[in-house]
Amino acid sequence: MPPKHITIRGRCPRGRAAVRLGSDVPSNTAYIVSRSVFIQLDGAGQLVAANSVSRSPCVLEEDDLAILRAFSHARTQEAALHTVRQERSLSPEAFAQAVERLRGNNILTPVRADYRAEDSGYVPASTGFASFALHHWMLRDSVRVMAYRSAILPHVRDKVVADLGCGTGILSMFAAQGGARHVYALEESEVAALARMMFRANGMEDRVTLLTGNSKDIQLPEPVDVIVHEILGIDPFFENVIPYIDDARRRFLRPGQGTLIPHKIEVCCVGVEPEFVPSIAHRARLEAREFSGMYGLDFSPYLHVLEQADEINDDATFPRRANDFRVGFFEQAILSEECVVRTIDLAGDLEAQTAGETLSSLKIRAGGRLGSLLMFFRAHLDDRLVLSTSPFSPRTHWGWAVRDLPRALSVNAGDEITLTSSLLTVAGRQKLKVLPK
Amino acid sequence: MPPKHITIRGRCPRGRAAVRLGSDVPSNTAYIVSRSVFIQLDGAGQLVAANSVSRSPCVLEEDDLAILRAFSHARTQEAALHTVRQERSLSPEAFAQAVERLRGNNILTPVRADYRAEDSGYVPASTGFASFALHHWMLRDSVRVMAYRSAILPHVRDKVVADLGCGTGILSMFAAQGGARHVYALEESEVAALARMMFRANGMEDRVTLLTGNSKDIQLPEPVDVIVHEILGIDPFFENVIPYIDDARRRFLRPGQGTLIPHKIEVCCVGVEPEFVPSIAHRARLEAREFSGMYGLDFSPYLHVLEQADEINDDATFPRRANDFRVGFFEQAILSEECVVRTIDLAGDLEAQTAGETLSSLKIRAGGRLGSLLMFFRAHLDDRLVLSTSPFSPRTHWGWAVRDLPRALSVNAGDEITLTSSLLTVAGRQKLKVLPK
Repeated sequence: MPPKHITIRGRCPRGRAAVRLGSDVPSNTAYIVSRSVFIQLDGAGQLVAANSVSRSPCVLEEDDLAILRAFSHARTQEAALHTVRQERSLSPEAFAQAVERLRGNNILTPVRADYRAEDSGYVPASTGFASFALHHWMLRDSVRVMAYRSAILPHVRDKVVADLGCGTGILSMFAAQGGARHVYALEESEVAALARMMFRANGMEDRVTLLTGNSKDIQLPEPVDVIVHEILGIDPFFENVIPYIDDARRRFLRPGQGTLIPHKIEVCCVGVEPEFVPSIAHRARLEAREFSGMYGLDFSPYLHVLEQADEINDDATFPRRANDFRVGFFEQAILSEECVVRTIDLAGDLEAQTAGETLSSLKIRAGGRLGSLLMFFRAHLDDRLVLSTSPFSPRTHWGWAVRDLPRALSVNAGDEITLTSSLLTVAGRQKLKVLPK
Repeated sequence: MPPKHITIRGRCPRGRAAVRLGSDVPSNTAYIVSRSVFIQLDGAGQLVAANSVSRSPCVLEEDDLAILRAFSHARTQEAALHTVRQERSLSPEAFAQAVERLRGNNILTPVRADYRAEDSGYVPASTGFASFALHHWMLRDSVRVMAYRSAILPHVRDKVVADLGCGTGILSMFAAQGGARHVYALEESEVAALARMMFRANGMEDRVTLLTGNSKDIQLPEPVDVIVHEILGIDPFFENVIPYIDDARRRFLRPGQGTLIPHKIEVCCVGVEPEFVPSIAHRARLEAREFSGMYGLDFSPYLHVLEQADEINDDATFPRRANDFRVGFFEQAILSEECVVRTIDLAGDLEAQTAGETLSSLKIRAGGRLGSLLMFFRAHLDDRLVLSTSPFSPRTHWGWAVRDLPRALSVNAGDEITLTSSLLTVAGRQKLKVLPK
């Protein structure tokens, strides 16, 4: 993937270990460069290493590349230092400091460590999803959590399950509640310590194994039947769901019969302009389009009846509740039909589905000044249930992403605007760029 | 229960039948006084008949009582007219009009009607929960719907299920999705026509039987293993859940082994005063208390960690999302601990649990002017999952009920206010009255 011209400010943060899982590393531990690391040349000509959503990308320092080369096959520190000093003069102290920094950022990671043990030598990330505040936002989003619970329960009985990026462990615990034979909960940040406490508090330690580390570096002891994952940003690619699923599917999932929850992601948008408040009747009809997916049922009779109903109006039926309809981005006009920019079948050929540019058509239904695209996604949790962040669905913690166009376009009803989308990697994180052609 | 001094305005509404299930009644149909009718003397000395949340209470007219007496055992119109005319002079036309009015309000209801048939003679209610707007509000409340889905799925496989007041049929369809052997969906209002279309659209007609009528008048063809019900108002008694469950439990549920979803209701309150906005950190900690019930898991480690977290603050962590914490009644100070006013075990002795006055203690935690009680409830859907309308939970369509006290009280931290509660019946609907003693 092409390097992106960005400037990375700052250096690798030192591991802050408020909830530290262990730092006493046996001296004979061998390290390897984490499989999750993505190294990219930035616009200033610096090498930037990024490897997860929970660690800031960091600029590699002068000796780092030689050190990483030395560790490119599993090496103890002693053996690696010997290799490095064949080509560079580097003091053992400077080498040890560099290794500690790279290890603290999971650029170097222990080999064959017991990822279950608290003294594995793995340094959990202390930023990103180590934040309890983020997990609180996700936990209070019961639209998200109950959609997953409802999808997980029927698919895990007597199955082996992996939960990628388990966070507080809630989805792993739902899998245990649903009768999973065993659950492997993978987490790279310090929130893993909380997940461990949660499994214990809920009496699930025998069925749920916490593995601390980046999923790309972890070996599971057995194939799994189900992979549960919620590594979705509001740009659903931004937490690198594609490369993580690609790896987990190949190395973890029972070939040919494994289940992914979710198994399909649609990236969608609508075109918007400022200053617009829809009627309550209009909003109700827009929302109702989402019910089929939300609840896994065919709501077409409901939609049909609602289209004909004359009783839904602002003043009579919903006097006290009108404001609930007006939160969020409905201050912005929605000028277009919904446009599906990308559909990714996570069980399919991921490279083919994400490579190159894709064209899609944004159908204008109301004339105006098209200034931004409001982006959202739909995650298909099973064949029926859809978790949607659409502006027409009950609001989730994700909210919506508004991408301003390079310049506003005057549009008329009936116009079709061609959008091009391409998946970029910026500082190791994937991002969908969507623009009018 | 004692008569309540209220004035009922208006007479029985004529059945408006926008979605009519059928009105051609065979002339030999026998009628009986609906078992759901509750007749009460109002403050003006008028007899008021009320029988459901979907029909307005109506004042009985001069000849109505004689007509109801005549139909007090199953009678055809011809036989009843004969009986009435033995004591009163009443023209056949006036009699027929009165019968039609009483029948249209389900005060008279057909006997042994096939409640499955669209020509059963039952007149579905055209008000109350016949409103699509109400159902839209309930459907977009995914906190509510997904809590029920999540609780229903694991408890219905190969079971026979009854859904009291099925509305659009969504909970019945979840039971069918969960593998129920058969589902009986009971609905007294015109929304039943939509439920019928939904069952058809979802290919569930063979497993879901729609029975139109009031549950108290319906005979089920077989005992059920599970009763699913969501006949809960924000005062949870207001849709008469107690008498309906009392009846359904005795007549529908398989004795000794049946399941109620929900099986327990707690009515709660906190004392409030105006003008107060809590910090985000405070609000996060309050909300987190609800997660154990919402998700059926022990969240004590999470709570413990959150208590110690210093990173949740208004300005740094949640700058863009701060408003989400400030919706609703948090403009009012919460001066007290939560107080459970009543706990009703729906599988227990309902009469004993609802009779008389109950005392409870409202513990004041912050001094101020105690002006109102903010009422909410918790419905225990199974042994783990709790659907809560607490102000500390994600908001549901119910919102909260604020009951102003007869006069505001000055309170200090540490005070305990004794509350008395008693269940009244007003115009046929139950209501919990809560007052400081």
